[in-house]
Amino acid sequence: MRGLLLASGTMSLCDDLPLPTARKGWSRVRVLQAGICATDQALDRGYMGFCGVPGHEFVGIALDGPLAGKRVTGEINAGCGTCELCRNHDSRHCKHRTVLGILQHSGAFAEQLSLPNENLVHVPDSVSDSAATFVEPLAAALHIADDVDLARHKRALVAGDGKLGLLCAHALALHGCNVTIAGRHPERLPLLPRGATLVSGWLEASAPKDVLPFDLAVDATGNSDVLPRLLALVRPRGTIVIKTTTERPTSICWSSLVVNEQRLIGSRCGRFAPAIAALANGSVPVERWIAARYPLAQALQAFQHAGTKGTLKVLLQIS
Amino acid sequence: MRGLLLASGTMSLCDDLPLPTARKGWSRVRVLQAGICATDQALDRGYMGFCGVPGHEFVGIALDGPLAGKRVTGEINAGCGTCELCRNHDSRHCKHRTVLGILQHSGAFAEQLSLPNENLVHVPDSVSDSAATFVEPLAAALHIADDVDLARHKRALVAGDGKLGLLCAHALALHGCNVTIAGRHPERLPLLPRGATLVSGWLEASAPKDVLPFDLAVDATGNSDVLPRLLALVRPRGTIVIKTTTERPTSICWSSLVVNEQRLIGSRCGRFAPAIAALANGSVPVERWIAARYPLAQALQAFQHAGTKGTLKVLLQIS
Repeated sequence: MRGLLLASGTMSLCDDLPLPTARKGWSRVRVLQAGICATDQALDRGYMGFCGVPGHEFVGIALDGPLAGKRVTGEINAGCGTCELCRNHDSRHCKHRTVLGILQHSGAFAEQLSLPNENLVHVPDSVSDSAATFVEPLAAALHIADDVDLARHKRALVAGDGKLGLLCAHALALHGCNVTIAGRHPERLPLLPRGATLVSGWLEASAPKDVLPFDLAVDATGNSDVLPRLLALVRPRGTIVIKTTTERPTSICWSSLVVNEQRLIGSRCGRFAPAIAALANGSVPVERWIAARYPLAQALQAFQHAGTKGTLKVLLQIS
Repeated sequence: MRGLLLASGTMSLCDDLPLPTARKGWSRVRVLQAGICATDQALDRGYMGFCGVPGHEFVGIALDGPLAGKRVTGEINAGCGTCELCRNHDSRHCKHRTVLGILQHSGAFAEQLSLPNENLVHVPDSVSDSAATFVEPLAAALHIADDVDLARHKRALVAGDGKLGLLCAHALALHGCNVTIAGRHPERLPLLPRGATLVSGWLEASAPKDVLPFDLAVDATGNSDVLPRLLALVRPRGTIVIKTTTERPTSICWSSLVVNEQRLIGSRCGRFAPAIAALANGSVPVERWIAARYPLAQALQAFQHAGTKGTLKVLLQIS
């Protein structure tokens, strides 16, 4: 089959990739569309040492399994199925998991992929193909509500106005937060949830002195250097959710965290059902964030476009 | 009055310190005993730039106010009383707070101190003077249970087998945790809660490979360099509580925290009532940790003794 292959640090389009094989308890999926995400670009730069087909934001048609013939997307972590975590329905943290397009698992930038049956989720007709490619990242954004009591964290700051930052802003607004986004793109104001505020310069220089401390800050910048600044903008007993997966270490002055009893929470993937529901009722207007669509044949150009400063979502039309 | 004064980086015994003045809503306390804590030693080395009488672990007799004549100890944070935090009973985080013996508030290493009436807590007869000096640090240790759902964090590792580490181990054991302490003093095994395990070398080198990951780790080492090691010893979605208030920054590799969805929680002072209850029923045998008692006249020697490697608690007999 045709697909994009990342091997030895080089991305190339291949026409002779092996089709996924049939496997008990797994379904094969014909990929329709897939989104290019910052993680894919990081993989291309060497993150995780990934070798294989990248891509984990997708919509497709199940070719076999319980959802055969249906339009589906899928949770990207495939656990071993037997360890204690998997038995407790937490395959996201299974030590032996594979992760679609990220860790020892061929991903969505190819004509077919395969996932365990229980990972696949039916996409209702009210969600377009393009919108369905946002289910995975929106689920990750909505996952903040699983880890933080948002009723006690109403005043929220989202650091970063890229794709993930916008999704986090919408996720928090859906949960009733009063959202401020600190970013570099004032022109993105129309893409924010209603009532949200867009500020710039707060992450590079000091925020204005009269800013009330936030209850919650979410780092969606891709740059953990902002953490000390976020800690300074959050109230005592407030929370910082970290979405940035940079491998570069950053220093924190721990005494201030301890004296202020703040908490830092690492946050990754989320449940798909709430994300599909939000897309189905049009709560998050993700289609307005699509900068371009490319056929799989032009996947390399699509990656180049996705990496251009200021570009939001680039989609690949696979089949 | 007589007391120990820390000024311009020098500790000295003074006989002519001013007595605390009467103040509406505050009580004066004649100090009976006070404990020397690692924070006092850090203040002596310049932490917080404190100038004044240190000391915040105490028992005394209230000289006026609602508890006049009673034996008391007291919560150490004195809020402004008017800000939103104080109105919501969280003066511990009031921006304008003073902290007994730590921040712009004369402390317990003197014949008298004063605190807001609502900070004072009656010490029942079942708690000795010496045990009562442990109320404040035991409250801080028990405070872990306010911030962490210990029913989901049964397997706990306490890093550090000093005073605070021992108190945290007992606090966690009281809440039903299965406790391991990583420290440097195998001879302290008899001071641990029943059933706890004492291991050494885990914080300096690698823990044995077959160690199951912990649900919770508490840093009570005074050295935040152990944090990366604690993150490696804690399971996905596990928690690290930081009690260490070092101003020296330490680097963390955030991507591992994010992928494992771990959380770091800064933790400081706690509620006195549960600590007094635990001491009253003999659950935490703190009197066995007392290495020495010195009269106030020998306070400088007491500090020297407290700073000697391997010394647990040194108390000052004030009056």
